[in-house]
Amino acid sequence: MTRRKRPPRSEPRIIKTKVRGVAVHHFGVVNDPRGNLIASEFTKHIPFLPHRFFMVFDVPHSEMRGEHAHKKCHQFLICLKGSCTVTVDDGRRRQSIRLDDFHRGVHLAPKVWCTHEHYTRDAVLLVFASHFYDPADYIRDYASFRTLVNRRYL
Amino acid sequence: MTRRKRPPRSEPRIIKTKVRGVAVHHFGVVNDPRGNLIASEFTKHIPFLPHRFFMVFDVPHSEMRGEHAHKKCHQFLICLKGSCTVTVDDGRRRQSIRLDDFHRGVHLAPKVWCTHEHYTRDAVLLVFASHFYDPADYIRDYASFRTLVNRRYL
Repeated sequence: MTRRKRPPRSEPRIIKTKVRGVAVHHFGVVNDPRGNLIASEFTKHIPFLPHRFFMVFDVPHSEMRGEHAHKKCHQFLICLKGSCTVTVDDGRRRQSIRLDDFHRGVHLAPKVWCTHEHYTRDAVLLVFASHFYDPADYIRDYASFRTLVNRRYL
Repeated sequence: MTRRKRPPRSEPRIIKTKVRGVAVHHFGVVNDPRGNLIASEFTKHIPFLPHRFFMVFDVPHSEMRGEHAHKKCHQFLICLKGSCTVTVDDGRRRQSIRLDDFHRGVHLAPKVWCTHEHYTRDAVLLVFASHFYDPADYIRDYASFRTLVNRRYL
């Protein structure tokens, strides 16, 4: 018997990374000859309610985006088209995750430093954010970020 | 002077359709050589907070999806890749909208009958829903839908 590559329904899985506050969510897929479906519920699967979303696209391959952390805002990133690399850092550990598939997303709790880079030409990154846009919520200086998060370890 | 095709920032616009409770939202775009950005805020621009999202993909071209209305749930549809046609119906008026671009989305208030069809092979439709999944919120019979909405006009 050959193994079915696409079962009628695959269950969602959440895989914690080594970086504090960061998990990769593999969405469940309902396979149906009339069209396949991915569904996810906020607060149940993704641990916040989004107040904002944004999409980043037409990013030159050499460009680095992100390069900040949030004080309060949770984020959830899905690469809808193409691919890009997200690097997350809790001040102690760092991990890079290649996003190349809309079947999974990455949850970032607040106080995670995040950069995205190596966007393919066609890449579109969708981000759900738990809060409205607030410039005061951004930590844009890595040294300040390290100082803030290391307080937690003292 | 030639007209700039891509200004640094295009303002969002909301265009009501002839169907009650349905509007097309053209997102504003922030053009930046480091990458372009579309952003939208729930409750401010899109008139609800999403509790769920789903993505529909691999839909055969001949297939018709949707074919229901919701009693309470708001939805917001964005075609992320490829294209599809969304037909909306308030029980009195009907309109078809071709979605072929993630720069815009369609808001459907509750009590709008909606079908989607003519999906291209690569099409991915993203839907934000104001409520958790609840089978009791679906109206799947067109005659019942007509009865329900026509009560409002009496």
